[in-house]
Amino acid sequence: MRQFIVLGHDAPTTPDFSLDDLAGGAGRLDVLCRCVNSAFFLSHAIREDVRVFLVLSDSVTVRFEGSELRRLNPDERSTAALIRGALEEKGEAIGHMEAESSPGVHVSKRGFEPVLAEAARGGTVVQLHEEGDPVVAVEPPENPVFVLSDHHDFGDEEASLLAEAADRRVRLGPELLHADHAITVAHNYLDTDGFERY
Amino acid sequence: MRQFIVLGHDAPTTPDFSLDDLAGGAGRLDVLCRCVNSAFFLSHAIREDVRVFLVLSDSVTVRFEGSELRRLNPDERSTAALIRGALEEKGEAIGHMEAESSPGVHVSKRGFEPVLAEAARGGTVVQLHEEGDPVVAVEPPENPVFVLSDHHDFGDEEASLLAEAADRRVRLGPELLHADHAITVAHNYLDTDGFERY
Repeated sequence: MRQFIVLGHDAPTTPDFSLDDLAGGAGRLDVLCRCVNSAFFLSHAIREDVRVFLVLSDSVTVRFEGSELRRLNPDERSTAALIRGALEEKGEAIGHMEAESSPGVHVSKRGFEPVLAEAARGGTVVQLHEEGDPVVAVEPPENPVFVLSDHHDFGDEEASLLAEAADRRVRLGPELLHADHAITVAHNYLDTDGFERY
Repeated sequence: MRQFIVLGHDAPTTPDFSLDDLAGGAGRLDVLCRCVNSAFFLSHAIREDVRVFLVLSDSVTVRFEGSELRRLNPDERSTAALIRGALEEKGEAIGHMEAESSPGVHVSKRGFEPVLAEAARGGTVVQLHEEGDPVVAVEPPENPVFVLSDHHDFGDEEASLLAEAADRRVRLGPELLHADHAITVAHNYLDTDGFERY
């Protein structure tokens, strides 16, 4: 299982945003939608062994589960509509329990800390960091958990939580990448077993 | 210089499409917009040494020039608006000459064959192919030209033109990727000098 946690710092937690303004009024939800795309899509298939947590403004989390997903399309607008649908069901999620808004899409009132703790229980947390080890030199974990941020850097508290949970610290290359591009490179690293199996 | 040619088989050649329906009525323009995003965006910069040709229905080409680009944003909708703007200026493009619709965005009435010939004059054409050599084993060319297709496979004639022009045939991994993801992996391969420099 490959897990990706993506933090949306300005992302909406209520469904009253316009699908016509994802990069503006919807708090850069476009970034999160592209992360979902990169995490799940292969040319003619969905990656079933993938789980994505979108953490919206550290208070609501939408979980996409590859093995259950239906109605996921590659474009930003339709993914944003799934997120909006999840936010419409938020009232059904009590405490840390989730509600399912469409097949494979689950919403809960959780912030980063409990989500990271849950993901870390089942996997190896990999921190992407400019000063990390070159990823090519690191043995791919069997159940990696990658944590990414939207267009903002991690906040101090987020960075501390992540550093504490991280089992590995790697860099993907000499350039700093957008979160969705980092997910694509991470998949390629895992698909090729560390750039060895083609 | 890194060049990417992306073929949009169903893409519009006139500006009368809706930005609200990129994945439907606009002939999967969402795919091409994501390719532009993957080709140009770094975390806090635009890749200036990149050129992208979007070939729309083999009859109109929109060229994005990294060193000249202004007003490019990462989301699909705003990139589609730049493409629509280019199509509005199509009448200004005479023969194979281009017209500039916004800084760094140029439109011409050209199909795949002349665009491939132009790109190939300045670079090494790399064909992505399931049966190609593992990219990790291939020395990165200095001026690569990657040719990609949208959600459809290459047509027979396109595949012949590409095979004839190709200097290298490589595969990026064991999985078949969307065109925009392939661009991201290609950049990572080039950024790291063949997964060696991090």
